[in-house]
Amino acid sequence: MAPTTPKVVVRIDVKKKPWEQELPLHNRWHPHIPPVADVTEAEVFRVEMVDWTGGGVGDNDSAEDIKTLDPTITHYLSGPLRVLDKGGAPARPGDLLAVEICDLGPLPGDEWGYTGTFDRENGGGFLTDHFPCATKAIWYFEGIYAYSPQIPGVRFPGLTHPGIVGTAPSVELLNIWNEREKKLVEDGHESLTLCEVLHQRPLANLPTPENCLLGGIEKGTSEWEKIASEAARTIPGRENGGNCDIKNLSRGSKVYLPVFVDGANLSTGDMHFSQGDGEVSFCGAIEMSGFLELKCEIIRGGMEEYLTPMGPTPLHVNPIFQTGPVEPRFSEWLVFEGISVDESGRQHYLDASVAYKRAVLNAIDYLSKFGYSKEQVYLLLSCCPCEGRISGIVDSPNAVATLAVPIAIFDQDVRPKSSGRVPVGPRVEKRMPDVLRCTYDGNLPVTKNPGGAHTL
Amino acid sequence: MAPTTPKVVVRIDVKKKPWEQELPLHNRWHPHIPPVADVTEAEVFRVEMVDWTGGGVGDNDSAEDIKTLDPTITHYLSGPLRVLDKGGAPARPGDLLAVEICDLGPLPGDEWGYTGTFDRENGGGFLTDHFPCATKAIWYFEGIYAYSPQIPGVRFPGLTHPGIVGTAPSVELLNIWNEREKKLVEDGHESLTLCEVLHQRPLANLPTPENCLLGGIEKGTSEWEKIASEAARTIPGRENGGNCDIKNLSRGSKVYLPVFVDGANLSTGDMHFSQGDGEVSFCGAIEMSGFLELKCEIIRGGMEEYLTPMGPTPLHVNPIFQTGPVEPRFSEWLVFEGISVDESGRQHYLDASVAYKRAVLNAIDYLSKFGYSKEQVYLLLSCCPCEGRISGIVDSPNAVATLAVPIAIFDQDVRPKSSGRVPVGPRVEKRMPDVLRCTYDGNLPVTKNPGGAHTL
Amino acid sequence: MAPTTPKVVVRIDVKKKPWEQELPLHNRWHPHIPPVADVTEAEVFRVEMVDWTGGGVGDNDSAEDIKTLDPTITHYLSGPLRVLDKGGAPARPGDLLAVEICDLGPLPGDEWGYTGTFDRENGGGFLTDHFPCATKAIWYFEGIYAYSPQIPGVRFPGLTHPGIVGTAPSVELLNIWNEREKKLVEDGHESLTLCEVLHQRPLANLPTPENCLLGGIEKGTSEWEKIASEAARTIPGRENGGNCDIKNLSRGSKVYLPVFVDGANLSTGDMHFSQGDGEVSFCGAIEMSGFLELKCEIIRGGMEEYLTPMGPTPLHVNPIFQTGPVEPRFSEWLVFEGISVDESGRQHYLDASVAYKRAVLNAIDYLSKFGYSKEQVYLLLSCCPCEGRISGIVDSPNAVATLAVPIAIFDQDVRPKSSGRVPVGPRVEKRMPDVLRCTYDGNLPVTKNPGGAHTL
Amino acid sequence: MAPTTPKVVVRIDVKKKPWEQELPLHNRWHPHIPPVADVTEAEVFRVEMVDWTGGGVGDNDSAEDIKTLDPTITHYLSGPLRVLDKGGAPARPGDLLAVEICDLGPLPGDEWGYTGTFDRENGGGFLTDHFPCATKAIWYFEGIYAYSPQIPGVRFPGLTHPGIVGTAPSVELLNIWNEREKKLVEDGHESLTLCEVLHQRPLANLPTPENCLLGGIEKGTSEWEKIASEAARTIPGRENGGNCDIKNLSRGSKVYLPVFVDGANLSTGDMHFSQGDGEVSFCGAIEMSGFLELKCEIIRGGMEEYLTPMGPTPLHVNPIFQTGPVEPRFSEWLVFEGISVDESGRQHYLDASVAYKRAVLNAIDYLSKFGYSKEQVYLLLSCCPCEGRISGIVDSPNAVATLAVPIAIFDQDVRPKSSGRVPVGPRVEKRMPDVLRCTYDGNLPVTKNPGGAHTL
Repeated sequence: MAPTTPKVVVRIDVKKKPWEQELPLHNRWHPHIPPVADVTEAEVFRVEMVDWTGGGVGDNDSAEDIKTLDPTITHYLSGPLRVLDKGGAPARPGDLLAVEICDLGPLPGDEWGYTGTFDRENGGGFLTDHFPCATKAIWYFEGIYAYSPQIPGVRFPGLTHPGIVGTAPSVELLNIWNEREKKLVEDGHESLTLCEVLHQRPLANLPTPENCLLGGIEKGTSEWEKIASEAARTIPGRENGGNCDIKNLSRGSKVYLPVFVDGANLSTGDMHFSQGDGEVSFCGAIEMSGFLELKCEIIRGGMEEYLTPMGPTPLHVNPIFQTGPVEPRFSEWLVFEGISVDESGRQHYLDASVAYKRAVLNAIDYLSKFGYSKEQVYLLLSCCPCEGRISGIVDSPNAVATLAVPIAIFDQDVRPKSSGRVPVGPRVEKRMPDVLRCTYDGNLPVTKNPGGAHTL
Repeated sequence: MAPTTPKVVVRIDVKKKPWEQELPLHNRWHPHIPPVADVTEAEVFRVEMVDWTGGGVGDNDSAEDIKTLDPTITHYLSGPLRVLDKGGAPARPGDLLAVEICDLGPLPGDEWGYTGTFDRENGGGFLTDHFPCATKAIWYFEGIYAYSPQIPGVRFPGLTHPGIVGTAPSVELLNIWNEREKKLVEDGHESLTLCEVLHQRPLANLPTPENCLLGGIEKGTSEWEKIASEAARTIPGRENGGNCDIKNLSRGSKVYLPVFVDGANLSTGDMHFSQGDGEVSFCGAIEMSGFLELKCEIIRGGMEEYLTPMGPTPLHVNPIFQTGPVEPRFSEWLVFEGISVDESGRQHYLDASVAYKRAVLNAIDYLSKFGYSKEQVYLLLSCCPCEGRISGIVDSPNAVATLAVPIAIFDQDVRPKSSGRVPVGPRVEKRMPDVLRCTYDGNLPVTKNPGGAHTL
Repeated sequence: MAPTTPKVVVRIDVKKKPWEQELPLHNRWHPHIPPVADVTEAEVFRVEMVDWTGGGVGDNDSAEDIKTLDPTITHYLSGPLRVLDKGGAPARPGDLLAVEICDLGPLPGDEWGYTGTFDRENGGGFLTDHFPCATKAIWYFEGIYAYSPQIPGVRFPGLTHPGIVGTAPSVELLNIWNEREKKLVEDGHESLTLCEVLHQRPLANLPTPENCLLGGIEKGTSEWEKIASEAARTIPGRENGGNCDIKNLSRGSKVYLPVFVDGANLSTGDMHFSQGDGEVSFCGAIEMSGFLELKCEIIRGGMEEYLTPMGPTPLHVNPIFQTGPVEPRFSEWLVFEGISVDESGRQHYLDASVAYKRAVLNAIDYLSKFGYSKEQVYLLLSCCPCEGRISGIVDSPNAVATLAVPIAIFDQDVRPKSSGRVPVGPRVEKRMPDVLRCTYDGNLPVTKNPGGAHTL
Repeated sequence: MAPTTPKVVVRIDVKKKPWEQELPLHNRWHPHIPPVADVTEAEVFRVEMVDWTGGGVGDNDSAEDIKTLDPTITHYLSGPLRVLDKGGAPARPGDLLAVEICDLGPLPGDEWGYTGTFDRENGGGFLTDHFPCATKAIWYFEGIYAYSPQIPGVRFPGLTHPGIVGTAPSVELLNIWNEREKKLVEDGHESLTLCEVLHQRPLANLPTPENCLLGGIEKGTSEWEKIASEAARTIPGRENGGNCDIKNLSRGSKVYLPVFVDGANLSTGDMHFSQGDGEVSFCGAIEMSGFLELKCEIIRGGMEEYLTPMGPTPLHVNPIFQTGPVEPRFSEWLVFEGISVDESGRQHYLDASVAYKRAVLNAIDYLSKFGYSKEQVYLLLSCCPCEGRISGIVDSPNAVATLAVPIAIFDQDVRPKSSGRVPVGPRVEKRMPDVLRCTYDGNLPVTKNPGGAHTL
């Protein structure tokens, strides 16, 4: 009978740089990046991956590496893999590629990760107007559990998942991406609301040859130049899956990806030991290197059979997935509500992003009453298995979003009590290591918000 | 020892009109609407409620009642209840009111509900540009289960909850509401994106004496006129809780509401046998009359101790709640992704509302391949226990939202299969009763979307 | 369209005695007890039931009623109901009757229950050699939750279920029951192990006319005399279902019962607000009056199609059921192990009953360290939603059984800690009301066990 | 900061025999088997283990190796490990050792396992009178999932766990074990019921030097002879934990073991990829080699503080454990009932073992109607994550046991249906490979059971 130890198709040496690995990595989406290996339907294979920065962040006490990280390097992906059926014929455009995540985890010998916030000028995060500084928390793994010296008093099982699973776009799809994102950057500031402008975050990250890594395409060639100038950045999730950062894409789940090029050209990366819905601090999961054990199935003609384009072309589709059976199980949740009124008191129209921002801010302020600094809670809610819901999206003018936090991850009872909280003042200092102190040195905008929420 | 049959503090006769009930109902938020009864901390009491329309929708084959429903009548609430501590002192502004939902359900003898979509000109819903017609599905209850003659092939246990639980606003908070919502209506069209304008839904519903019901305030008096002209509409959720439509506020959960007036003045209504996250079709839960068995606790000074204002005043807070232990349990979910690119292909910046819209549209189209009409699926996803998540909110420019649908509610296997779907063409007709056919007779906008998504 | 308020087929007045109810009750199994009503496939109907003793136990401070309760009165059942298909033809022997529990609960106005232990001489319980006294705890319901003045510090949601759901036996099956149970009583003491003899519990409860209630059969007639002398007692579960006391037969579950007589003659009773696996204290659930909302389906020929006789005749079968979707959800459990070595140190051969006894005793002793008396914990483990498992049944000579207790039902943290337990000595007295003190006045056997486990 | 890659304290080479490993293994319990390594409180360490037979069963088509397996070889354990506190002081008798299972799994490169039944003369299993033959099924792992060529049509996620976690007994405890088990063997046949005699399984496995492996004790020495003649066999679970075969002792769980000797001397082995409650076929889990990542905590004086002896000495205690958060999650279960009436129709008194046997037999017969052979289902129910419950243990004379099988593990719908089963006759043959055919050649007892249950 057949052995079932998965074939390793991409092997990573975490001591080497991304561009020194045995099989070349890539950090852009482009149809012409050549496959590094073939995999066949029904076989279980193993892909190893560097962390999203390719080792750019260290297991140490300083957030300096986060502060100076160049976003054009991201995300280093393994692949692309060409997927063949049992007869050797490749997946074809129009097929669906069902990818089952049989197992996943950190790389043996590299069982740690980090969560950070970027400086306001360097990408920021969902709450960058409240938390403009670069910060960093290190997480160590004890099997399924993670704990952080920077955020004592919490320990939780990870819902581990790849932030990125995607197929290569076709030339046509790539053009659609580039055009619509370019248009957003060009027109963006006109149509954006004040709240969004205050973010000062990049509206989109357009193609750039800077720090471009294109797998088997040799640098310096004209082919490289052309591809580098048009290859899509990996930051947003798109029609091909990509950086969806969906925390429930974990062990045992199965994702159905549209196929746009011959062979599907499957790439993976950005492993997360754990992440909260929204990944609010941006570098916000517990980021790590890791491995995936995958099994593919080709559903011939599946795009037409199962997906319906939701836009001007047949390519405007999105992946579907089925959840796995072994997520961590919590039965008690404390839930924070938010409505689409921003911190200045301004009313937004059914804006779920604003409502979710307020729910997250409410949770941060609430939990900071239990001895944590707000920076600690911001990082925690970004990476612990909390759930962000769109609860109401129709009751004009307020969208209602909720953020549910599992109570069991804390080593104290964080529920409201009529007998009052246990006084925790002194713990604030104890729990606030240097690495989490604000060191922002940019120019801060004038605060429009006279309330108590700002941390500056 | 003490009997524990809950004291009935508000009794409803569903054969009577809202204004004919034994204790007067109300459909606005205002600090001066007088309490109809007192309840004491720690006692379990029962409140009965009409459905949100007060009997305006019938258990019959026609969507005509939905089509002509006047939104100024909503929502008919029971209360306010004045909450006292065991010594007889009322809850005070600044306290937190912990309300435990010990039990809830439909009213005996009235075990049915309905889900509908409003006409585009009459309020519409989240997808009104795709589904501009008034439609209606009736649901019958068999204990914990609901089924609908209009949407055959599904049956599911309800996660029953009140759409509205709220305390009365203070005069100051009421003024804040009225000002910010008025400003939205005045300025709104300038700042709204095209997508939102296309909705043609009301930006906000400002105070109006039309169909105003103010509990114990006698109509025709100058007091009534004043209150009616300034009392807040009940449609959006706000700082006092209100119409949050949070489906997980079910049996055994406990909500912590801020108190703004003496006695708290707790009101409840808008009972839902079941609802999906977002309540996307607007009249979108399984709407019903029903009862709540509640138990209150006053946390003195709890607002300052546990909540942090997130805005210009100390009143800019939101409720918190803890989930209950008996939600229906599903282990297998099919999940649909959406990104913040709209149906015209336009890129939006980290807009979770657009991403969720696309996830819902993707789910509707997918499930319609299994023999349902799109109108059937739209109503189903609005009222079945599906979960809407904000999965990624930081990866510029795309927010990623997901909609998770429990597979077990269908009487067929709706997963993608390499062997193909079972052909279900003929079932479409069988499953599409007249009440769900589009009867929209308004002026449709020119469709900007050349893709296949539109149903018109 | 059709109304769906369930038809009430048996109505109970809890102020009346069992023999005074509108429709006659019964407390024996016999094929000739006539149906009191007809129900039809697919309709939802409601059956109300007295508690198992028919009001024999009071909501008061004294265990005297438990102490003197005559076991020949039990269990008072509602029914039998004759089940017809949609064409009016009755269920037939050889069919399977699928009974769905759409809803259930306490009777309105009677929201309380009790848990007790019987005196050693009056039936005892699983641990009667450790707890020979009659005791009683009263439970009050707050919606889904129960709490007891006698066992403070715990509150939990009920997994409500009927202790008894059964079909009538045929004459042939009744004879099999009577013969095998009579043989046990006759031969029993020879083959029983010491452990079992020490119990001094009745080996079986054979037919007796004493306190016999036979529904529509008129007392004093020769028919009554004959039936009373041969009708089976309701205490054990058997081939017809009956008193299985399976706690997971709750809302939304569906039980498949074999049909032995025309019409199936379905009877129900012994409602439990909550029960632990094993119902160890015998009167051990939270016993209450209550209602069931049921829906039947007849599977013609289902016995042959789905069941396989496991004995000398085709009648030696057992019911099957499917669990429902809304059980209370706990994520943290403390689990106690037991092996088949009894309290005297004697080794038993793969005896799961002995192993389970030891697991329960271990749990009682452990939890009594947190301020409860052992009597309190014995009653608690009998009625709270704890799970009893047969973990290992093959590793000679030790069966291993486990008892899992949900941690969330306690108002203190009952996990072992290296920092030690909080001292709780004084709470023992506070928590031990008179009703739970041992008042046993029988002749106690000489204790064989020099260890610390005995409570006497 | 500290690296967290677990220290490997025992490394296994599966290509070598148990007695050839780098650190010596052992297959007996004895206080004088010397520790092979030290571990310190709070550190995470890794232990690797051979499968229980040390490679005695092959990944092949023949059950011959199962048939001839010598039970005196079992179980090969890794350890003992001496546990020290952070100051270097060992655990002491009277302490509790909290062992957290941080992670576990198969050994990389050895991702397969097997389930078997032993021949009646060679140990048999729970149902050896029904299934007297040696059979074997091979399972391959695809990450969290297992599938078997011998039992097609099922695939399920494993609830992986060690069958054996235990501390070394003291001399006093060892003597207690040997005495009580010897007494059972001597007196056993007098007190056993017919049912048990029919099993013809060994009543207990007494010490024997045959195939004895004693870690660092050199064979041939008088010390070896003495220890070998008195060391306890590893087959049953006992006061030290040991072979409890508790399937829920999985990732994230924490077991509290009593300490009987200095250093605790922790041993582990018998890894199971998955197992059903009861492990009914004896060699009944998915047996494999594997690894554990553990973390220990010493609770000083914890035995007295938390455990209560349940027998003549303070040593008569049992471990406690807390479940972990990541068990596979199933929401739909089909449940089979059994009562304590055996296959001959004989009534037993509250015998949970007999009731469970009947529940398992009922499940086997039921599921065999869907195209499986009974041998296939017997093996499946032994190793899939099914739950065995003691539902009722007080309703004389019938104990009620239930076996709950998760519906989702089958690739067909196995629920009863009024429309009838899909005919599956031809699948029986297809699904019944040679390795699962009965090849028993012993002397069969005269069958007492005229019913249909016997497979012979």
